[in-house]
Amino acid sequence: MTEQNLSDGFSCPLPVSHHEAIMLGHGSGGSMTSELIQRVFHKYFQSDGLEQKNDAANLLMPDHIHRIAMTTDSHIVTPLFFPGGDIGKLAVCGTVNDLLTAGAVPKWLSAAFILEEGLPIAILEKILESMKKCAEEAQVEIVTGDTKVVERGKGDGIFINTTGIGYIAENFQPGGEKARPGDAVILSGTVGNHGMSVLCARGELGIKADISSDAAPLNEMVRNLRPFAPSVHVLRDPTRGGLSTTLNEIANQSQVGIELDEKLIPISKEVNAVCEMLGFDPYTIANEGKMIIIIPDEIKQEALLAVRSSKYGENAAIIGRVFANQSPMVLLRTILGTHRILDSLSGELLPRIC
Amino acid sequence: MTEQNLSDGFSCPLPVSHHEAIMLGHGSGGSMTSELIQRVFHKYFQSDGLEQKNDAANLLMPDHIHRIAMTTDSHIVTPLFFPGGDIGKLAVCGTVNDLLTAGAVPKWLSAAFILEEGLPIAILEKILESMKKCAEEAQVEIVTGDTKVVERGKGDGIFINTTGIGYIAENFQPGGEKARPGDAVILSGTVGNHGMSVLCARGELGIKADISSDAAPLNEMVRNLRPFAPSVHVLRDPTRGGLSTTLNEIANQSQVGIELDEKLIPISKEVNAVCEMLGFDPYTIANEGKMIIIIPDEIKQEALLAVRSSKYGENAAIIGRVFANQSPMVLLRTILGTHRILDSLSGELLPRIC
Repeated sequence: MTEQNLSDGFSCPLPVSHHEAIMLGHGSGGSMTSELIQRVFHKYFQSDGLEQKNDAANLLMPDHIHRIAMTTDSHIVTPLFFPGGDIGKLAVCGTVNDLLTAGAVPKWLSAAFILEEGLPIAILEKILESMKKCAEEAQVEIVTGDTKVVERGKGDGIFINTTGIGYIAENFQPGGEKARPGDAVILSGTVGNHGMSVLCARGELGIKADISSDAAPLNEMVRNLRPFAPSVHVLRDPTRGGLSTTLNEIANQSQVGIELDEKLIPISKEVNAVCEMLGFDPYTIANEGKMIIIIPDEIKQEALLAVRSSKYGENAAIIGRVFANQSPMVLLRTILGTHRILDSLSGELLPRIC
Repeated sequence: MTEQNLSDGFSCPLPVSHHEAIMLGHGSGGSMTSELIQRVFHKYFQSDGLEQKNDAANLLMPDHIHRIAMTTDSHIVTPLFFPGGDIGKLAVCGTVNDLLTAGAVPKWLSAAFILEEGLPIAILEKILESMKKCAEEAQVEIVTGDTKVVERGKGDGIFINTTGIGYIAENFQPGGEKARPGDAVILSGTVGNHGMSVLCARGELGIKADISSDAAPLNEMVRNLRPFAPSVHVLRDPTRGGLSTTLNEIANQSQVGIELDEKLIPISKEVNAVCEMLGFDPYTIANEGKMIIIIPDEIKQEALLAVRSSKYGENAAIIGRVFANQSPMVLLRTILGTHRILDSLSGELLPRIC
């Protein structure tokens, strides 16, 4: 089977073993990525950290008391600058937010740059300035770095890897495997802003829309949720693959069903309009400054208030609930009152959005 | 000034402020890299970790007792496979050895992949297998990962970032700033094998030579040096920029002179022959499985024995000494008995060797 055939049919990907080569969909963060990890990477890499299947590994220090979180992300977004952010801001926020999902206090970041020969130094400086600003807001220090250069045409301007370390407190260790039937699902704001902002910035579709990326470090929001520990069962940021993919991951880890009420999911008019025009499902579009919070039903209102009073949380809403189900699934109760299944993103809708 | 002018004159680089764009030499690990870091990156990133100027940051945990080391490297070597190693082995060894230079026991690695669309999955698997093997030997766990995909022509097969964490013991914290006049300099084996292996594997120069990369994790060697703590003043692996650049970094950090005796520096006949043929200085060629050890003169013979009895240390030698000098410098006493100054690598001799 040729790649052409495969990419034509990307909405129903074949097992990796049938692919001969890497396709863009393998980087989507959706089911093709997950399949590549399970069928290829998993053969070679096995560890407690990876087995946890969370965005950051929860690691026990040699004193058998302290724990740290570790997470890594390479950033390849194109274009490098877009309304509301740039690759530098993403590189810091992305890793900070992944540490936060483990309940960690983000502390140290590494920053490794792959620069393409010919990249104007003025562009590099603009990106570094943005990283500095975001690191200051997130109160993380960049403590170690690396710079590599590839020839023209062997890279794409700049790729940035950031890897982060944070401290984990004993009583605050949320994880995707901890959702329980009856729990409420809170989303910290509107969906789809980041992906749609990058898409519009590319200018390829001739769409002009006033959409800014939501890229932001969510330290304050998670700090405000700490008083609810250990009842904060899950924290997860719906980045690549969007709300649908992230909730499916959680449903699988916790072996539960998750039901969302469409009329409660915050979405901006602009994002909704562009998605409708292009036939995109906003629940599969990436976010870079949102958090999914899963907590017991009895404290949902208090937790919602805590999120709403946090920076970047003013549009938070309770969007659904966890229910017991034999097979993990995510159900959407539509505005019409019908139900539809929300699947993980399968192929690649929008390559290189982070 | 155009880039053409600059790359013609790369042996005498201009200040970064005069460059308009990134050049290959900025990734050399030599003086152009150092200048880019000092004049550009340093403006935006400042932290205790970076100020240490060592290969790994030495970080104090919140209990104010425990310390960890953190280091990062992106790997962009071409070709992906060469005699003695491949990009996967390099990615693990490079980060493990950088942790070891901080005296740390390497523990956890992240692995982040930037794959080019079209990369055969069989190639990816071969690289993962090599990473697995090297991680097992180095007793590190890959605990978190990331996979991104770029379109054909926007990458070069595969780039790998590894970031590492290790534990640091209280009495074993070598650092580039700790060389003292009178100290002896030990090199753990022959110079130049890695760079020359990659160069020959490219086949561009029509040279056929039996040179294997020295890529290897040096855990056992550093473990065998622990009994000498805290007298192990400096550990540093002479990678990009080779022996000359690394010793110049140490001389600058410690504000000392370092004198080497050329006839004592181990070098294989093959590496020497290829370097002579091409007019390369073997002391600027990258190594990936070597350690520079700087220790007090009185224990140099014992330390040498410890290194020689370690895996990958059988050809170790005492190659020089540290002396007091007003300005930091590295002097080579040549085979003819004359002296010449060994400078840091300035431009880029061999791009993309790691």
